[in-house]
Amino acid sequence: MRELATITEGIIGQPMFNIFKKVNEMERSGRKVYHFELGDSDFKSHLHIREATKDALDRDETHYVEHVGILELRRAIADHAEEHLRFRPGLNQVVVIPANAVIDFVIRCVADPGNEVVFSDPGFSTYIAVVSYAGVKWVGVPTKEEDAFHLDPDEIAKRITDKTRLLIINTPNNPTGAVLSKEEVEAIYKVAEERDIFLLSDEIYSRVVYGKVHHSAGVHDKCKERTIVLNGFSKGYSMPGWRLGYAIGPEDVIEKMGMLFQTIYTCAPPFIQRAGIAALKGNQQVIEERIEKFRMLRDLLVERLNEIPGISCPAPDGAYYVFPNIRDTGMSSAEFADFVLERAGVTLVPGTCFGTHGEGHVRMSFTKEPEIIEEACARMKDALSEFMSGTEERETAKL
Amino acid sequence: MRELATITEGIIGQPMFNIFKKVNEMERSGRKVYHFELGDSDFKSHLHIREATKDALDRDETHYVEHVGILELRRAIADHAEEHLRFRPGLNQVVVIPANAVIDFVIRCVADPGNEVVFSDPGFSTYIAVVSYAGVKWVGVPTKEEDAFHLDPDEIAKRITDKTRLLIINTPNNPTGAVLSKEEVEAIYKVAEERDIFLLSDEIYSRVVYGKVHHSAGVHDKCKERTIVLNGFSKGYSMPGWRLGYAIGPEDVIEKMGMLFQTIYTCAPPFIQRAGIAALKGNQQVIEERIEKFRMLRDLLVERLNEIPGISCPAPDGAYYVFPNIRDTGMSSAEFADFVLERAGVTLVPGTCFGTHGEGHVRMSFTKEPEIIEEACARMKDALSEFMSGTEERETAKL
Repeated sequence: MRELATITEGIIGQPMFNIFKKVNEMERSGRKVYHFELGDSDFKSHLHIREATKDALDRDETHYVEHVGILELRRAIADHAEEHLRFRPGLNQVVVIPANAVIDFVIRCVADPGNEVVFSDPGFSTYIAVVSYAGVKWVGVPTKEEDAFHLDPDEIAKRITDKTRLLIINTPNNPTGAVLSKEEVEAIYKVAEERDIFLLSDEIYSRVVYGKVHHSAGVHDKCKERTIVLNGFSKGYSMPGWRLGYAIGPEDVIEKMGMLFQTIYTCAPPFIQRAGIAALKGNQQVIEERIEKFRMLRDLLVERLNEIPGISCPAPDGAYYVFPNIRDTGMSSAEFADFVLERAGVTLVPGTCFGTHGEGHVRMSFTKEPEIIEEACARMKDALSEFMSGTEERETAKL
Repeated sequence: MRELATITEGIIGQPMFNIFKKVNEMERSGRKVYHFELGDSDFKSHLHIREATKDALDRDETHYVEHVGILELRRAIADHAEEHLRFRPGLNQVVVIPANAVIDFVIRCVADPGNEVVFSDPGFSTYIAVVSYAGVKWVGVPTKEEDAFHLDPDEIAKRITDKTRLLIINTPNNPTGAVLSKEEVEAIYKVAEERDIFLLSDEIYSRVVYGKVHHSAGVHDKCKERTIVLNGFSKGYSMPGWRLGYAIGPEDVIEKMGMLFQTIYTCAPPFIQRAGIAALKGNQQVIEERIEKFRMLRDLLVERLNEIPGISCPAPDGAYYVFPNIRDTGMSSAEFADFVLERAGVTLVPGTCFGTHGEGHVRMSFTKEPEIIEEACARMKDALSEFMSGTEERETAKL
């Protein structure tokens, strides 16, 4: 019988990429759009990383390689962990897999359909997309603007049941920018340890912090017992389209994840793995300079958004998104997103794409050229000023 | 509770890559090995393809792109289908996904756990690996050496039940090299049509035929009803480590596969997609010359293998593997593989990695430098001559 499988009902994808595709079609028909929906940047991949890739292509490093990742890259990742996470994983604890696939593989390798996975609401949309199609239940831990969207370990503990297999934390957080303190990470690790569940520590934005220090949950068990550290090159090293990431974790989980990657993908392209080595071992100053640039852009976008009626926007501590409160506009997140696309040509992501507790917020990436930020905010300000004055008139009329 | 999910019990990977990893570790400890286990080649990726990639890196085509694949590549794939498959698919019927992931996604998008998928035994190991972890049942259709390993449509029809969701054909076939005739493909399509099931037509070796013509099942329904054509760049264009492939199929399936790819992987790297355009649109003569070279290497390996006692090896019509019969050695496939690795330093894949009906055979890739083929065969011949004379002595002694 020709019918689709049950999982297809749960395949929802990543909302920002669905928006991106829709808006690209609008652009192809001549519409000018200001893109703030993706976690990409307007800036180039670093030259030394692109050159390392080209050199590898010249050497014809284009053949199959071991599915777990080439030895030099796994060693470079272990070196990096030793320097930044304060422990050195064994090479059998490291596997080279794109970061989104790490999320998919960890969830599917530790949770059966019907099991539960705990993470924050709002939380990153790929977690939501994977549990949705895998038939796993998401148990959300609400995080609130008044707590600067920090996770409360007690609120996590309350939600763990006999069906919980995995807890996911994401610091710095996408979409809220919250960076957990050392004490918070330690307390969360203890919850996972006491309840004997796996802990996925999504550290993809670990390098992208502004005056804060990133703390890894991996340090507590050296990723030998239950912690799987996810990291990659898209964010800290400005390599979004390269699709290169890695996981560090207990050998039994890492082995299964590697074999699943081998089944579905064979291996990461070797010339792209050379780019990863160049990123980890090459010039770190240009990478730090890029993050300084992001800080300036964050400050610019926050300042401009706070000048717009109906929007209030705190400055995030990490990652490269703002998550402003738009409740005073009287619109829902989805209405607001439609409104600014229609009236200002600005694309952003409704907070509800990250969970029901994202209502009242929208996500905007600030890795944009300053003039784009200025223009987009000016257009939003005009549209919202007009809308809000109209709203006020309507509200006055109602009295 | 910290425990692995049920699917992990079924994650077996691709045997040739498990062999490759094990043998690489032997090589690192100083052992000389002749590699015949992988579907890779000893020859470089074509220069114009590598240069197109480098140009794209220079233009910084390293950002996120639409998950379904960039428009220019999807158009080039549609052009290629029009020329080679005799129909032009709509752009919404085309999605750019690595070929192994196409296999995984098709199976998971059309078959629930407990459903059945029908394909040949011996059959490609990724099909076996995916159904194994996905909890789908493989119903094998035995193909026999005396029929040159051709699939019999009647034997397929007999095995289709109410639980069958998908039939997979693979022409040219890995591991047997069988190339189905136009009439065979048409008869197989009719079975899928009559029983109203999906048909995955794995055409990854479509360009790699020796004096035969490749026939696609896609022509019968223009991939609009039930046929999903899988193709990619690894084999015909000598791009194994690039991980670039595509599917052409009915819009409902293609949409779900694209969204699953977006969830797990976001998109194929844009600079690699440019390589795909260069492969499809660039110099086709060098590509045809490479396939001519493979034909010479096939003939050399077949000739040398037939000089070895206990081995009989027909010349395959397509793909780039031989699948010799090794029964006269008295060893099983697995014993033979261990024996030639131990005694001759040659790695190959036991036929049983492709199903129980692969017993009595082994798979060897012939995309190797001629001197490697000569050396490896000489070593196998020495080892087997010694072994067989010992066997004969032992058998004589038994009388």
